[in-house]
Amino acid sequence: MTAESPPPVSVALVHYPVRNKRGETIGSAVTNLDVHDIARAARTYGVYRYYITTPYVDQQGFVGEIIGHWREGYGATYNPARKEALEIVRVVDGLQQAIAELTAAYGERPFVVGTSAQAQDRTMTFADLGRMMTAGRPVLLIFGTAHGLAPEIMATTDAVLPPLQGRTTYNHLPVRSAVAIILDRLLGR
Amino acid sequence: MTAESPPPVSVALVHYPVRNKRGETIGSAVTNLDVHDIARAARTYGVYRYYITTPYVDQQGFVGEIIGHWREGYGATYNPARKEALEIVRVVDGLQQAIAELTAAYGERPFVVGTSAQAQDRTMTFADLGRMMTAGRPVLLIFGTAHGLAPEIMATTDAVLPPLQGRTTYNHLPVRSAVAIILDRLLGR
Repeated sequence: MTAESPPPVSVALVHYPVRNKRGETIGSAVTNLDVHDIARAARTYGVYRYYITTPYVDQQGFVGEIIGHWREGYGATYNPARKEALEIVRVVDGLQQAIAELTAAYGERPFVVGTSAQAQDRTMTFADLGRMMTAGRPVLLIFGTAHGLAPEIMATTDAVLPPLQGRTTYNHLPVRSAVAIILDRLLGR
Repeated sequence: MTAESPPPVSVALVHYPVRNKRGETIGSAVTNLDVHDIARAARTYGVYRYYITTPYVDQQGFVGEIIGHWREGYGATYNPARKEALEIVRVVDGLQQAIAELTAAYGERPFVVGTSAQAQDRTMTFADLGRMMTAGRPVLLIFGTAHGLAPEIMATTDAVLPPLQGRTTYNHLPVRSAVAIILDRLLGR
């Protein structure tokens, strides 16, 4: 599409396993909004793939319909910019499928980085991750819906970014906003 | 609410006058999503007021209903974090009303800063604006819905921030994402 060669970074939005407000592990529903807003931010910052992970077949079908409308249906003519954003979206049943696809594409396993609104073990700074990406290491950033990634998936990551902090103790950013901010911190000019 | 004293920054989301895809001046409809997502990002970064500007009485009523549900209705009990975010939202009929309210609150007129996806005259860098805010000058950041602020409103601003740039030529960030990124650039820790 463009002359630039995009940095080797991909994003995954996880719908299972995530936590609910009581800290229990659940599966969440995919929202139309998360599909569109995150695709547009990811496309802006040169993300290679935006994976939407859900094991639920009905949810996979729902996302497939949204994407089909804008990629091949009436929406593709009506709004070509939306088509371009959604071209990077892939629906997968879990993170392992995303990692397998990226490993095949790059010839090496991506470095998997978790995100959280709470401080976690194995934290890596934005600056260090930025340097790793500049050096060409493929990276997969993973984000949780609902109240965040479940501990069992966080434990499988290679590192975790620090929580985003504004100037207050309010800690309820939409995941869509968190994705946009983190991409800008790592890749913004 | 908190021990911090928030920086003197406010946000306005303009629904009239804005541009449509052909560059004509129009009024756009307020979306539920813009109310919630921008309120949560603004609250995170210590924004004083999030003004939703629309001259349409039915639209003002629509926003009032959303806010009422989450601030005083069932939503306030169900989701106190949402109530806290929406407490900073004010519906006004235009930018002049927002500026008048802020002037009364601060005892001086805020410095009005436009945003755009295209390069504009009178550009001010993020670093310079951040320094002005740190020095205590009240600032009002204005964002356009649809295809951006109309020229007649851009002409009334004191300065304009440069367009956000990722690593590509794709230039279609949702306004919700742009607000989150700009607040993080100016106020993130």
